[in-house]
Amino acid sequence: MSRAPLSVGNLLVIGLGLIGGSLVAALRKNGVEGRFSAWNRNLSTLEYALSQGLIDEIPVSLEQAVSQADIIVVGVPTLAVGDVFEVIAANAKPDVIVTDAASVKGSVIDAAAQAFGHIPPNFVPGHPIAGSEQSGVEASKADLYVNHRVILTPLANTSEQALATVQSMWQACGAQVVSMDVETHDRVLALTSHLPHLLAFGLVDTLAKQNDSDDIFRFAAGGFRDFTRIASSDVTMWRDICLANREALLDALDLFQSGLLDLRQAISDLDADALTRCFSDARSARQNFLKLLEPL
Amino acid sequence: MSRAPLSVGNLLVIGLGLIGGSLVAALRKNGVEGRFSAWNRNLSTLEYALSQGLIDEIPVSLEQAVSQADIIVVGVPTLAVGDVFEVIAANAKPDVIVTDAASVKGSVIDAAAQAFGHIPPNFVPGHPIAGSEQSGVEASKADLYVNHRVILTPLANTSEQALATVQSMWQACGAQVVSMDVETHDRVLALTSHLPHLLAFGLVDTLAKQNDSDDIFRFAAGGFRDFTRIASSDVTMWRDICLANREALLDALDLFQSGLLDLRQAISDLDADALTRCFSDARSARQNFLKLLEPL
Repeated sequence: MSRAPLSVGNLLVIGLGLIGGSLVAALRKNGVEGRFSAWNRNLSTLEYALSQGLIDEIPVSLEQAVSQADIIVVGVPTLAVGDVFEVIAANAKPDVIVTDAASVKGSVIDAAAQAFGHIPPNFVPGHPIAGSEQSGVEASKADLYVNHRVILTPLANTSEQALATVQSMWQACGAQVVSMDVETHDRVLALTSHLPHLLAFGLVDTLAKQNDSDDIFRFAAGGFRDFTRIASSDVTMWRDICLANREALLDALDLFQSGLLDLRQAISDLDADALTRCFSDARSARQNFLKLLEPL
Repeated sequence: MSRAPLSVGNLLVIGLGLIGGSLVAALRKNGVEGRFSAWNRNLSTLEYALSQGLIDEIPVSLEQAVSQADIIVVGVPTLAVGDVFEVIAANAKPDVIVTDAASVKGSVIDAAAQAFGHIPPNFVPGHPIAGSEQSGVEASKADLYVNHRVILTPLANTSEQALATVQSMWQACGAQVVSMDVETHDRVLALTSHLPHLLAFGLVDTLAKQNDSDDIFRFAAGGFRDFTRIASSDVTMWRDICLANREALLDALDLFQSGLLDLRQAISDLDADALTRCFSDARSARQNFLKLLEPL
């Protein structure tokens, strides 16, 4: 691995929020050379980023910014990626490297195929496994990616050089970059991220609909707070993820429901052994998982 | 409220773990007078507590300890409370004050009626809303109850004096004591505590059963870690709670399942508006709940 300073040229973040803001902050902190700009539907977000020294300039237009970029990182909600790809297809330099940060990769690759008429070799689908229930560029942290994994899902025609550049960019932020096929990514993330978000949103919404919801929430404790933390996440982002990863999420949900029905039966039958088995296995698995989990 | 030092006389914790250990530590820290002892099926637990200065002595037998106690705090798993009540019924002073810390109150009150032949006026059913996924006396913290709620569910025949004593004991630990009827307690706790534990255990167990469970867990992130924190909880304790609160927990589970089926349908139908509504309502409710939640 070369230790010469990495240069990313003109890097443009489209959809500047927690993910893109933290990326730029991390690149700057780690001495990566380049000119950083960003686009967002809210001008105030860009003004904030400029005032904080995150970006070097506010572009005149998205089209102009795209035309000057050497690397474009797309950070908009999953279902808005397609529209951004259309602008890139119409305005970017031919050798621009494009990557994204969406939590679903299959739908983003489909959107690329549609916008570009093919999947460009310089498009490297990506997904940083980081973030929090907080959102927005104001929540950016230069160390958000340190010791976190970034999954890339390169395709057969993905350029080695584009892949290496995107890898180096994330590694410069302290991330551990891994490659995975698209289907595995979307299935694994459905199980460990998209499904838990759905369950947390669903539980809080169900409780909020009860007549005595204030009393219910009043006596909830720390366990409930942590269990439902992800129900404070950005609504549009998660709506898009659920729709974009529909098949894998429905499969994950059905798998979970099947296990939950077994648990229901065990409680209904007062089957202490079945509950002990399930809870013990879960507890052991989680203790092992804590060892696997990246430090946060 | 009197500011004279509270005295609890001979206080006996039966089933010394996180809850009882933290209670004794808090009483000592806050200058509450008394002689503290404890019983546990593991002698090593008592030896640890003695070595840490938590308890003043290790009793010769449970029967002897019970016979000398002025206040007994029952901290064993919910379904073991009945056996402890039998020993209390056979050995305790007639005016002993008994309270417990079980997460289900209906089953504990039934167990009292069965063990004593009636529900003793000096029995004050209680439930401190504190704890963590850690367990055991080694995890005790003198400030575990500070700004946490303790729910008491006194009955029509509960002695005012016994109720006041148990209230004072918990208030001395920094807790906020509230009273609630038994049915409301068991329903609210089913929704905010027992159901989330069941969902967390169920999800982790389901994922652990997959052939590629190591890969699945490897790419789980902070959201999953927090969502499943409660799946590291004590197995016996939670098995007992699920069995003891069977009716309320099944009702809570069915309520949740009904909401989840609606969400499933919305995803299946690609109904973006329904998802937005659910996620927005959940997010708002959780932001409000964070204001209600006791500081932890």
